[in-house]
Amino acid sequence: MFYAVIMAGGSGTRLWPVSRRKRPKQTLHLVGERTLFQQAVDRLEPLFPHDRILVVTKTDHVPLLQPQAPELPPENYLAEPQGRGTAPALGLAAVHLRRRDPDAVMAVLTADHHIADAPSFRKVLADSQTAAQADFLVTLGIPPTFASTGYGYIQKGERLPLESDQPVFRALRFIEKPEPSGAARMASNEGYFWNSGMFVWRVNRLLDELRRQMPGFYSQLAEVEESLRDPQEYAETLARIWPQVAEQTIDYGVMEGARDVAVIPARIGWTDVGSWSSLFELLPRDPSGNILAGPHETVDTRGTLVFGGRRLIATVGVRDLVIVDTDDALLVSSKEKAQDVRLLVTQLKRSAHDALT
Amino acid sequence: MFYAVIMAGGSGTRLWPVSRRKRPKQTLHLVGERTLFQQAVDRLEPLFPHDRILVVTKTDHVPLLQPQAPELPPENYLAEPQGRGTAPALGLAAVHLRRRDPDAVMAVLTADHHIADAPSFRKVLADSQTAAQADFLVTLGIPPTFASTGYGYIQKGERLPLESDQPVFRALRFIEKPEPSGAARMASNEGYFWNSGMFVWRVNRLLDELRRQMPGFYSQLAEVEESLRDPQEYAETLARIWPQVAEQTIDYGVMEGARDVAVIPARIGWTDVGSWSSLFELLPRDPSGNILAGPHETVDTRGTLVFGGRRLIATVGVRDLVIVDTDDALLVSSKEKAQDVRLLVTQLKRSAHDALT
Repeated sequence: MFYAVIMAGGSGTRLWPVSRRKRPKQTLHLVGERTLFQQAVDRLEPLFPHDRILVVTKTDHVPLLQPQAPELPPENYLAEPQGRGTAPALGLAAVHLRRRDPDAVMAVLTADHHIADAPSFRKVLADSQTAAQADFLVTLGIPPTFASTGYGYIQKGERLPLESDQPVFRALRFIEKPEPSGAARMASNEGYFWNSGMFVWRVNRLLDELRRQMPGFYSQLAEVEESLRDPQEYAETLARIWPQVAEQTIDYGVMEGARDVAVIPARIGWTDVGSWSSLFELLPRDPSGNILAGPHETVDTRGTLVFGGRRLIATVGVRDLVIVDTDDALLVSSKEKAQDVRLLVTQLKRSAHDALT
Repeated sequence: MFYAVIMAGGSGTRLWPVSRRKRPKQTLHLVGERTLFQQAVDRLEPLFPHDRILVVTKTDHVPLLQPQAPELPPENYLAEPQGRGTAPALGLAAVHLRRRDPDAVMAVLTADHHIADAPSFRKVLADSQTAAQADFLVTLGIPPTFASTGYGYIQKGERLPLESDQPVFRALRFIEKPEPSGAARMASNEGYFWNSGMFVWRVNRLLDELRRQMPGFYSQLAEVEESLRDPQEYAETLARIWPQVAEQTIDYGVMEGARDVAVIPARIGWTDVGSWSSLFELLPRDPSGNILAGPHETVDTRGTLVFGGRRLIATVGVRDLVIVDTDDALLVSSKEKAQDVRLLVTQLKRSAHDALT
């Protein structure tokens, strides 16, 4: 059977001050009327019935997420005591699924992306099953729309001889976030895709790669899998093992060194809602290139995002800024450096303002 | 006798959102522990006894100013029903003084400037009386410290043959706020001063110029002067006449076309606290060129003024900004365009946000 696993454990520090530890970005109304997490669930319908949608997140986030998607069975919320990166999160989901269904195929999805074209998205997921059943680790590749230095890239190889509606290609190489020159070269070349961080694979195929490439983690995971026969034992084992698990991403830990990786082109109107600058891709701009939400007044202002709260925000003679106002904290960042809000939050955590993170 | 007339009727729109209609900048603690108005009174001591210090302001502002300088006699607060610019304000002060003392010399001073060296300031005022008694209209000229395009300039002529401690020069020409090239030329030339807007003259000499250059206003003023014999009549006359008075500044209305204008060099640590960018001249900067007041956290931030309120203000990757936060309104401006906060306030007055001005 085909299952969806939504990763919803991120903290969204780059969207501070709106995103906080206690209200992470996937639980927020940033774009549209539903939260990012709700949209991630909504767009799976009707491809996945509710009982085949799983959510991996941190224990702390379960009480925030569950009320937002009460249609999912409670046992489908898989809670990690601590976030350990995407590789352990997906390993945990995989052993849960293997227990339910040894032949499960899992689609790995995100709760902090925006997807404008949900029907095409479901079509890509449905089509990717053929390659996954043929034992490929399938990556959803986004045709680049600009020379982003914020995403990883995937170089495509030959078309795979599979019977699927859409062509699927061998993935030759994963390229980490490039310099501007590399980004410009790849973005203008049809041989490259953005790495969306969404994948489709057989659960056993992923677990085989984990065994081969992350043997230490795999043995920890095997202990957790063993404990699944008894809920009490599982809770105790997870609480004991997880703090010892090393942090790892699925890209570094698995994909870069994996055999038989495929990429399926996904023209789905995808945007990573990762930072304030990415909201410039999503929200409509006025003729001056501004995005103005909340009470505002501008003089000679261009390319600026005003994400307001209750107070008036006035701007004079500014360019390419991000201004985000909340009741207890205000951010003013250049659009170009909006990724560095992450550094700011790290600084804040070490300061007297830790409570505001 | 020598009198001081402090002009304290300005609204300080360029210091919005801290300066508001109902709490104009001269009543605020912007620099130091005393308000700008209190500092303007304080620095006259001991040159002027309290009964020879007059304040011209708008009726609305009297209840704000009087409690700040209760040492001045109540009758020394001269209230204009409406602000009509500096020429009518000074005309009104002049007729009040002529009635008290037909030989009065008046020093015209401001409540929104910062003067670092008060002893030198009092020395310049004392010295300027000689030229004023010789019937010159004396301007306090500030030796330029940078190529400001925000001030008017005065070109100096020959030294006047007067017996005073400091040399006094004929003023050849008043030059309005120049373009950057003109500002650069004049700021690097010892033949030019900034026009401080502070003057010393015989009351009758000013009134003669008003009669010659602003005859319409002078006849209105004569009616007001006539009414001074009776408080009730004065109140009624002012209320009737003042709304009909045309707006005019002392620079355009009198100084540019006046005969026998002098300039006395004033090395007094003078700064016009006119706009947020002028506060960069006044407040100490940290090694990154920032001025940070209120709770803040910065990443890669330079040349930026953070004038905070109660909330945390965080900045990332910004340069040369002015960020001013209050409970109900926030300003983000480029330092370069901080003068245009005036335009912003004009826009606000026409908008639904008028109450915030």
